[in-house]
Amino acid sequence: MKIKEIGEFGLIGRIASGFRDLIPNGWEGIGDDCAVIPWGDDRSLLVTTDLLVENVHFLRERISAYELGAKSLAVNLSDIAAMGGRPAATFLSLGLPPGTTDTKWCDAFFDGYRSFGVPLLGGDTTSSPEGIVINITVLGTAGNSHIKRRNAARPGDRIVVTGPLGDSAGGLQAILQRLPTDTDTEELIRRHHRPRPHLAEGEWLGAQEAVHAMMDVSDGVASDLLHILRASSLAATVTIGDIPVSPLLERTADKYGWDARKLALTGGEDYVLLLTVDPARFDELQANFRRQFGRRLHVIGECAAGAPEIVYRGEEGQSARLMGFNHF
Amino acid sequence: MKIKEIGEFGLIGRIASGFRDLIPNGWEGIGDDCAVIPWGDDRSLLVTTDLLVENVHFLRERISAYELGAKSLAVNLSDIAAMGGRPAATFLSLGLPPGTTDTKWCDAFFDGYRSFGVPLLGGDTTSSPEGIVINITVLGTAGNSHIKRRNAARPGDRIVVTGPLGDSAGGLQAILQRLPTDTDTEELIRRHHRPRPHLAEGEWLGAQEAVHAMMDVSDGVASDLLHILRASSLAATVTIGDIPVSPLLERTADKYGWDARKLALTGGEDYVLLLTVDPARFDELQANFRRQFGRRLHVIGECAAGAPEIVYRGEEGQSARLMGFNHF
Repeated sequence: MKIKEIGEFGLIGRIASGFRDLIPNGWEGIGDDCAVIPWGDDRSLLVTTDLLVENVHFLRERISAYELGAKSLAVNLSDIAAMGGRPAATFLSLGLPPGTTDTKWCDAFFDGYRSFGVPLLGGDTTSSPEGIVINITVLGTAGNSHIKRRNAARPGDRIVVTGPLGDSAGGLQAILQRLPTDTDTEELIRRHHRPRPHLAEGEWLGAQEAVHAMMDVSDGVASDLLHILRASSLAATVTIGDIPVSPLLERTADKYGWDARKLALTGGEDYVLLLTVDPARFDELQANFRRQFGRRLHVIGECAAGAPEIVYRGEEGQSARLMGFNHF
Repeated sequence: MKIKEIGEFGLIGRIASGFRDLIPNGWEGIGDDCAVIPWGDDRSLLVTTDLLVENVHFLRERISAYELGAKSLAVNLSDIAAMGGRPAATFLSLGLPPGTTDTKWCDAFFDGYRSFGVPLLGGDTTSSPEGIVINITVLGTAGNSHIKRRNAARPGDRIVVTGPLGDSAGGLQAILQRLPTDTDTEELIRRHHRPRPHLAEGEWLGAQEAVHAMMDVSDGVASDLLHILRASSLAATVTIGDIPVSPLLERTADKYGWDARKLALTGGEDYVLLLTVDPARFDELQANFRRQFGRRLHVIGECAAGAPEIVYRGEEGQSARLMGFNHF
């Protein structure tokens, strides 16, 4: 059987099952945005790792070295934020094709990497015959009571995101369709290349008891929400009209005939946070979030008892079969 | 300037210098086999990461999936052993070219990976356009007083290795020269593809006060020893005739006209441990090691005050200019 047939998540499941017996008590492995390792009496280390490969995750001629350094780290920091943690240390492996990158490129890459102020504690450098290869591992810390997992959603929970969806997918469209650069397409591409991990939001939400499950939106909310539903054994209803879409994406989608809400649901790489919230405490959380961050949380649906699937409300032609990005 | 001109270690130095101010007190970054992170009052976490790229670190058609899984993890476990630690958890990123590897290949890879009994706690899988890409991060633990670093060598210390050198390089020669397979070349190739990380030895040596500096031999002892000398600001004398070479390598080298001791000094990928030992306590350490492991430590030279360089004794034509493997 080819990997393609079982897909990325099938492969992960296949791998995880073979190692379950080896994992020490109290340590948590595959299944959340980070692994969880006890660290002292009431804190834990969170660990996440991501592999980025040229021509799969980025096009070298379309992203600057600075942006690549920043984005590579951002996608990992987002996983720490997704569990309510604070990043503490990073490890970088870098494979570079001989003769294609110079020290100026490297310096710019590391300027971008350093832009989040998180220390680099180790790594590996090597040559790579074909394309740039980047692997980053991030260690974060969190109080045990602040760690948010995917399996903690409950029936009736509001489903919430911390920012607009689809801008990154719109930027990718603009790159792939080689659209003429104007202020709007440039800004969408910038949002694709410079995602902001919601670190402050994640740490703050981690401390809120009203927040039950949390993860980050990396593959697209349609796909990512299913992870929470499967882990929590719940169904969900999502209201298409409530998906937050930026005026920028709305405008650009109108101009080029894209379906903005489909991009928002399935596009991925937004790196906002997706969480479920106790409905009785949502208004208070919303008010406090607004005070803390000067903007609001977006409710896009709610959890319900039932088999893990998403029912989309409010537009024709959308169905639970909407899928996220599969790397194979 | 091209990366090639500054080399792997130049690049690492360039990177490290930009992050020094960000590293928290008591945390140790680039410069040893692992980073060190405080973990409770008297223990630390050790963290190491390695990137392996097809056609740079391995040839897919010459190494089995099982061996690749085992070796990829072995080289990382060796870094934990090198600092006196015990491996606790691993994280694996795997980039696979679509259509070239199937689930059978993956299952064999993971059988090899699992052969050390160390848990896999997380990772990432993706496609890779050209070749297989493997990144592994390993977390280990060690009592603070047992951690061995490169900068702890002292003048007069015996320089010691925990096993024979050059077998792996001999195996690589046999692969590259496409030598006819007989029992000897097959065994050398096996040693190249199935290095045994000296985990038990590393943990035991970590607990011995007589051991000062320690690291593992990955790039070749001629190159690796220089890291200890630079970190400790010492010179060293190495006696060529004392370099331990297996009868197997000796025999094969004679047959094919290789210089066995040059392979042993510069070949790399042996993954034995290289340590420096208090000369007054060496005999006791040797006796205890022999009791514990049923074989002996090999003294190859000694440290002396002076600028970081190695003087080779005992054979003509060898000089301090012998260099290890540079990935660029």
